[in-house]
Amino acid sequence: MLPRWRKPWGANSEAMRRRRFGRVGIVGLGLVGSSLGLALRKHDACREVFGFDTDPEARSTALQIGAVERTYETLNHLAAADILVLAVPPPAVVPCLVEADVFAREGCIVTDTVSVKAAIVSWTRTYPLRFRPRFVGGHPMAGGANSGPAHATADLFEGATWVLTPTAETDRTALRTVQGLVESIGCRPLLLSPEEHDRHAAVLSHLPHVLASTLMRMSAMLTHPQMAGPSWADLTRVAASSPELWQSIIASNRDEVVSALHDLEYHLKEIRDFIQAHDDQKVLELLSESKRLKDEASR
Amino acid sequence: MLPRWRKPWGANSEAMRRRRFGRVGIVGLGLVGSSLGLALRKHDACREVFGFDTDPEARSTALQIGAVERTYETLNHLAAADILVLAVPPPAVVPCLVEADVFAREGCIVTDTVSVKAAIVSWTRTYPLRFRPRFVGGHPMAGGANSGPAHATADLFEGATWVLTPTAETDRTALRTVQGLVESIGCRPLLLSPEEHDRHAAVLSHLPHVLASTLMRMSAMLTHPQMAGPSWADLTRVAASSPELWQSIIASNRDEVVSALHDLEYHLKEIRDFIQAHDDQKVLELLSESKRLKDEASR
Repeated sequence: MLPRWRKPWGANSEAMRRRRFGRVGIVGLGLVGSSLGLALRKHDACREVFGFDTDPEARSTALQIGAVERTYETLNHLAAADILVLAVPPPAVVPCLVEADVFAREGCIVTDTVSVKAAIVSWTRTYPLRFRPRFVGGHPMAGGANSGPAHATADLFEGATWVLTPTAETDRTALRTVQGLVESIGCRPLLLSPEEHDRHAAVLSHLPHVLASTLMRMSAMLTHPQMAGPSWADLTRVAASSPELWQSIIASNRDEVVSALHDLEYHLKEIRDFIQAHDDQKVLELLSESKRLKDEASR
Repeated sequence: MLPRWRKPWGANSEAMRRRRFGRVGIVGLGLVGSSLGLALRKHDACREVFGFDTDPEARSTALQIGAVERTYETLNHLAAADILVLAVPPPAVVPCLVEADVFAREGCIVTDTVSVKAAIVSWTRTYPLRFRPRFVGGHPMAGGANSGPAHATADLFEGATWVLTPTAETDRTALRTVQGLVESIGCRPLLLSPEEHDRHAAVLSHLPHVLASTLMRMSAMLTHPQMAGPSWADLTRVAASSPELWQSIIASNRDEVVSALHDLEYHLKEIRDFIQAHDDQKVLELLSESKRLKDEASR
C-alpha cells in the first residue's frame, strides 16, 4: 500500500502553503513545460521557476508569457533546483536523466511527464542514477492538439488527473512532494504501477490518437467530407497533433497499443455483427449500457 | 445539374429579406425542432413559427423558451403553414407525412430533419402524397448529446452544413425555398442524392456514435477509467445520446453503417499491422497524412 498524502505541519496556514516547493526547474519549454510553469506561478506554489530548452525561440516565448523567470540552454545550470520536471518528448527523457544526474544537487527530486512509463521507470532501475530513489515517474492527463509554449495556459492541468508511478524503491518524501506539487496546481494525483499506467494510457490516450488519425483518412475517401458535423470534429480533434511526437509515443508503448487496437476491433466486430443480424434489441442494450457509463463518468 | 439558389427580386433589401418565409410549422419540439424555431425567430426569417408535439411538456417548454408562438397537439391545425418542417424521430416520419398530407394546404412545402434519407425519399416516391414534388428531404449536421427542448439554442445550426436531398421530381421552387430557409439561419446547404447522403452519414455521423459507445464499454473494463483526459472525453461525448434514437437511426441505415464499420476495422488493422511490425516510418507517414487532412479541414 502506498501512503496517502499527509499535510506537513502547518500546511493549513496560507503562508506555509505558499511557495513551499522551493526552486522548480522545468526541462523542455513546450506546451506541457510552459503550462506547468504558468500554473505553478499562478498558484504561487514555489519560490522560483526556471526553465531549460535547446530552442532559443521556445526559451524567449516562455519568458515572454511569464512561464519561467530565467531560462538556460544547457542543464549545467540546474544546481539550484529543488525539484526538476522533465517535460521533454519521449526520446529525450533518458539523455536528460543522465545529464541531470551529473548537475543536480544532492536531494533534488526529479519527475517527468512522458506518456509512456514502464520503459523509463525500468531504465532508471538499471542505470546507476544518484537520484534514483527520488525519481517519480509522472504523466499529466491533459494536453492539446497544438504544441509549443505559444499555446500554453495556466489552466491546462486544472482538474486533470496526474498519474504518478512510484515503485517499491521510491523515496516516500519525494513521492509526497511530487503529489503535493501537482495538487497545488489543481490536479488529482493517481498512483499506478508503470505497467498499469501504460495499459490504461494505451486505451484512454494512445488509442484515441490512432483512431482520430484513421478516421481522418477514411473521411478523405468521401466526395463531401465537409458534410461532417460537430461530433466528427470532436472525434478527430487530436489528429492535428504532432505526428513525430505520437509516432514516438506509440512506438514506446507498442505492445499495449497493439493490444488495445485488437480489443477495439473485437468490440467493433461484435456490435457490427448484431447490426448486420438485425438484432436491434442487442444493439439497444449495448448503446444503453454505454450511455449509463458515460453519464456516470460525467458526474 | 441542380440550379444554384438565386435571390428573389429585391431580396437585398432588409425589409424583403425579413419574414420572407411566411408561416413555418414545426412538427416535433425536441432539441432540433425547438432550436430551429429559436433560430428562425432570432433571424426574423418568417411571419410566424408554430409547433406541434404530442407531449404536453415539450409544447409548454417550447412556448416558454420562445421557440414557437403557438402550439398544437395534432396536425389538423397545420393548414396555415406555408412551410412544414418534420423534426421527429425516424420511425415517426412516415406517419407524420401521411397525416400532414391530409391537412396541409395546397402548395405547402415540406421538409424533414431525419439523419437517414434514402428510405424516406424512396417511400415518398411510391406513396401518392399530394405534396410529393414539394417534399425536400433534409438533414442538419448539428445536434447535441442532450435531447429535448430545454437544451435548445438559437445557435445550434450556426455555420453547420444542412444537407438537402432533392430528386429529379422535386419542384425547383420548393428546393430554392428550403435552401433559402436554412441559409437564413446561417447554415450551408449541401445538395446530395439520398444514397450519397446515407453513405456519408454512415461514416461521418453514425460511425462516431457506434465508436463512442464501443469505447465507453472498453474503458469500463479498466480498473481506473477516471484516468481519462480531455481527448477521451471528446471522443466519447456522443455516447450520452439517446440509445433509442440512435438504435433506430442505425437500423434505418443498416447496410451503410455495417459497411462503414467494415472499412474502419480494415483501416485499424492496417495501422496495427504497421505498429506491430515496427514499421515506424509507415506509422509516421499515416499520422502525417491525417494531420495534413485535419489541418486542411479546420481551415
